[in-house]
Amino acid sequence: MNYQEILEEIFTEVSSLESKGAVADYIPELGNVDASKYGIYLDSIDGVGFSLGNAYERFSIQSISKVYSLVLAMKVLDRDVWKRVGVEPSGDPFNSLTLLEYENGIPRNPFINSGAIVIADILMSYYQNPKEAFLNFVRKISGNPNLDYNEKVAMSEKEHGFRNASLANLMKSFGNIHNDIEDILDFYFYQCSLEMSCKDLAQSFMIFANKGKLLNDEQVYIEPRHAKRINAIMQTCGFYDESGEFSFRVGLPGKSGVGGGIVAVHPSHYSVAVWSPKLNKKGNSYLGIETLERLTTLTGFSIF
Amino acid sequence: MNYQEILEEIFTEVSSLESKGAVADYIPELGNVDASKYGIYLDSIDGVGFSLGNAYERFSIQSISKVYSLVLAMKVLDRDVWKRVGVEPSGDPFNSLTLLEYENGIPRNPFINSGAIVIADILMSYYQNPKEAFLNFVRKISGNPNLDYNEKVAMSEKEHGFRNASLANLMKSFGNIHNDIEDILDFYFYQCSLEMSCKDLAQSFMIFANKGKLLNDEQVYIEPRHAKRINAIMQTCGFYDESGEFSFRVGLPGKSGVGGGIVAVHPSHYSVAVWSPKLNKKGNSYLGIETLERLTTLTGFSIF
Amino acid sequence: MNYQEILEEIFTEVSSLESKGAVADYIPELGNVDASKYGIYLDSIDGVGFSLGNAYERFSIQSISKVYSLVLAMKVLDRDVWKRVGVEPSGDPFNSLTLLEYENGIPRNPFINSGAIVIADILMSYYQNPKEAFLNFVRKISGNPNLDYNEKVAMSEKEHGFRNASLANLMKSFGNIHNDIEDILDFYFYQCSLEMSCKDLAQSFMIFANKGKLLNDEQVYIEPRHAKRINAIMQTCGFYDESGEFSFRVGLPGKSGVGGGIVAVHPSHYSVAVWSPKLNKKGNSYLGIETLERLTTLTGFSIF
Amino acid sequence: MNYQEILEEIFTEVSSLESKGAVADYIPELGNVDASKYGIYLDSIDGVGFSLGNAYERFSIQSISKVYSLVLAMKVLDRDVWKRVGVEPSGDPFNSLTLLEYENGIPRNPFINSGAIVIADILMSYYQNPKEAFLNFVRKISGNPNLDYNEKVAMSEKEHGFRNASLANLMKSFGNIHNDIEDILDFYFYQCSLEMSCKDLAQSFMIFANKGKLLNDEQVYIEPRHAKRINAIMQTCGFYDESGEFSFRVGLPGKSGVGGGIVAVHPSHYSVAVWSPKLNKKGNSYLGIETLERLTTLTGFSIF
Repeated sequence: MNYQEILEEIFTEVSSLESKGAVADYIPELGNVDASKYGIYLDSIDGVGFSLGNAYERFSIQSISKVYSLVLAMKVLDRDVWKRVGVEPSGDPFNSLTLLEYENGIPRNPFINSGAIVIADILMSYYQNPKEAFLNFVRKISGNPNLDYNEKVAMSEKEHGFRNASLANLMKSFGNIHNDIEDILDFYFYQCSLEMSCKDLAQSFMIFANKGKLLNDEQVYIEPRHAKRINAIMQTCGFYDESGEFSFRVGLPGKSGVGGGIVAVHPSHYSVAVWSPKLNKKGNSYLGIETLERLTTLTGFSIF
Repeated sequence: MNYQEILEEIFTEVSSLESKGAVADYIPELGNVDASKYGIYLDSIDGVGFSLGNAYERFSIQSISKVYSLVLAMKVLDRDVWKRVGVEPSGDPFNSLTLLEYENGIPRNPFINSGAIVIADILMSYYQNPKEAFLNFVRKISGNPNLDYNEKVAMSEKEHGFRNASLANLMKSFGNIHNDIEDILDFYFYQCSLEMSCKDLAQSFMIFANKGKLLNDEQVYIEPRHAKRINAIMQTCGFYDESGEFSFRVGLPGKSGVGGGIVAVHPSHYSVAVWSPKLNKKGNSYLGIETLERLTTLTGFSIF
Repeated sequence: MNYQEILEEIFTEVSSLESKGAVADYIPELGNVDASKYGIYLDSIDGVGFSLGNAYERFSIQSISKVYSLVLAMKVLDRDVWKRVGVEPSGDPFNSLTLLEYENGIPRNPFINSGAIVIADILMSYYQNPKEAFLNFVRKISGNPNLDYNEKVAMSEKEHGFRNASLANLMKSFGNIHNDIEDILDFYFYQCSLEMSCKDLAQSFMIFANKGKLLNDEQVYIEPRHAKRINAIMQTCGFYDESGEFSFRVGLPGKSGVGGGIVAVHPSHYSVAVWSPKLNKKGNSYLGIETLERLTTLTGFSIF
Repeated sequence: MNYQEILEEIFTEVSSLESKGAVADYIPELGNVDASKYGIYLDSIDGVGFSLGNAYERFSIQSISKVYSLVLAMKVLDRDVWKRVGVEPSGDPFNSLTLLEYENGIPRNPFINSGAIVIADILMSYYQNPKEAFLNFVRKISGNPNLDYNEKVAMSEKEHGFRNASLANLMKSFGNIHNDIEDILDFYFYQCSLEMSCKDLAQSFMIFANKGKLLNDEQVYIEPRHAKRINAIMQTCGFYDESGEFSFRVGLPGKSGVGGGIVAVHPSHYSVAVWSPKLNKKGNSYLGIETLERLTTLTGFSIF
């Protein structure tokens, strides 16, 4: 089977699955999405794209944005990033305070909320206008100049962001936050509100499958050694406390968001994004995981 | 020996002790205090007061203020207070987030910081001007109309209050905080900055030794059943994670503050306050505990 | 009202309460007890005993035995006991491993299972035949030479004692257990299987109300300073993670067991035992606590 | 550079590193090893082996044995293994009880001690003589019929195995252990005491690099889907609470043991084993990790 046939086979199979899980609704703006949406886009390293369903429709990328901000932070601070955040899986839900307290304000990894807030703080210290810098970078690597934040979502997150404010204040008490907390959270909520399609996501994640470059473009958007390491962190920490399960079932580095998106990469082969808004209990797209598990089964190869 | 002789005997003994511990210095204003200060004041239920050393000098009462605000909250909400805060010892340091997260934003008891912040929130919802109400109440029961907040201390706490902001935000995320967090913390830091002498403290705590009344005054400042219960909470929770140790060594209900003050009561007998700024590792006055242990040994009676 | 009238008033009131809770049934021998049993015995310090209901019927004392073994350990090691076990409330269920691991094998206090196992280990190191020594001591202070262990209960505990074996092994890995684990647990399960009546319990606990002595007997069974301290520990740690609640509602030092018994003392006034097999969720007798709360309310005095 | 040149380059570099870490010495038999030993063996999928240093000398494989026993358990129970043990990283040290208690006796993954004990229990239920079955399997896939347990090491582990006994008893209290604890631990300590060389290890791990087969042998020792999943678990859980760090720095699935050995595989390319007895603070071979990091850097490719 070629990729297109595989995507169609997957679609047939997951269409017959009982619909499980629930759309994220802790802010009204996320709860309004049509739960039946389903899209997938696969970008192969030889330059061909394959798609199916709502692959061109934009949705809230939420935590997937943490990968982009980590890329920028590694450009800015290189290995000094790791003085302020770790690379170990947390084994705890994405917004837990317990480990953070126990470990003196150093987040376990950059993909739990506390870690992403530290990364946002790093970008605040470096960029005059971090919102603009972030947006420009994602527009460039996705090849889509029309991407934008959803201000309504960002505002709504802010109104319900007490737990994130709790994390930020705790880290500040340990000296691991340098800028004003409200400013950081404002930037953080904007970055999470970015809206992208499966195609946008897959195309931009090609830099992790292709040693830092996009296809048809000689620019190095991220050093290969950095791309390799971000892949490693996605592998062990990309799915909150379900990271081991994803690694076990799918066998690819990836990152999910509560908007229902998942992006994954098979280095040297392809990047792929899938979207289905219903989440399992761990906060990851139920059909998204089912889809990617079938992808590595049907292609017959994963990184393992 | 009568009480005066006992106080003098204690003073002789503790004067010969090696000076241990350190003055609290997480804000500069607290660190400036003269570490050699030492005062004690005992108010006996038959109306005689006994004192020694710097018993009339005011210092920052800090966490001792949590007892006064609990009294006010029980007047306001009666037993509904216990829907929002527990009565169990925490077994954790005074500002831990772990238990609070595990227990869904309900603080273990009103004498750890999170619990006191909930109590402050309760008072904010009830009083138009909680700072004024609080101050008036303490002035009245201490018989000292000159008591006041130390604004410099309150401001300084605020600048270093990230952990308390973290606690408040976490509880707000669980719905256990109703007012604006900045307003609550402002009130909380003011209440902690109140300055009182050993005499002021002992006199005001007579309401816990005398079933809710002061001496020579028929007014019931707190219902006897409330006084009894606050004594019980002081007994099990008054000294952070050293509460069992204090109960074991001293055998009286009491409350300490990082300003170096400790107040204790022997119901139906006396209230007593001691002040010495150097704190042990658990944040309680080193000589304060030594003093009170000798007091119950030399008088030959405690509540046990 | 005199004590007898108070007991009868309490009986009337608690009889009308909806019957709540469940009999402990983790071993079949405990589950077989008649759930409707109810007894109370109050021994006043002036030598008069008051009783009601099944006050003379024996039941499994279970964790109440931990108080007797602590008395023996303090006789043997005096303050060196506190090198191997703490005096702080645990804030956790009675058999938690988490704190024990975190605190390097030193149990929080002698009334959680791990602490009682350390105490058993201390007695094993001192007595040739600790089972006999323990039984003789309790027979003596209860004035009942017929008391005995229930071997069937002890054996059954042993068969289900994997969690206690887990605790003992963990402490041994930290060096805080000196004897053979099977021997210690055998002794521990026997001590818990002892059967006593409310009368036996109240009479023996008089040593805590009467500065170490029984009534009509000049022998000092425990030094007054030890009695005072055991009272303090009962106050803060006697009811697992409901100790604060018991202190708050009842205001007396006491100890409960999963057999449905509770003993409490009002120093210089009385000792009292109550028995009702149904337990609340924290493992303490539901009607037992209701009874004692009414006792301090109706008598109008507690230690606070 | 070819593999042999790369090994030599690595050897030159790590030889110049300051010697860090300490040999495991919680049992005397492990502490006696010569700390300066260093060996490496790389088995490439095209059938050529490369070696350097003490690559043919046997040492105690310790936790590496957990991979072999997982293979056997998956053969026996297939996916039912995952009803009794998870696949998530633990984020805690290898022998922690806290998570195990919190998660009701289901170990996080098969590579922490509790998980390996459950796997041993599974094998005990299936095999008449699990020690023999285990040994035969490892002899076969390593191609070395002379491999054997070190009885002295096994006995010594047993004498110091109180923490493992604690874990086993805790899981038994939750119903997740079916056989006699002493028997299970006896088997577990034997399996850990197995002695193998870098060559033995690399050769046997070829089944993970080669879809379940050895080279020059058509037998399928483990189904390809199982091999893939064990690789995924090694990737996320193979190095205790340093698994993320290893993934980040090296980028290969692998497993370490406190004997100083590490085995890793690059699926479809090679398997590799390295041995150096000095361990870092997380219990992993200090020079072993340095070696493998250089290997993926110098070859220019990892799974990411």
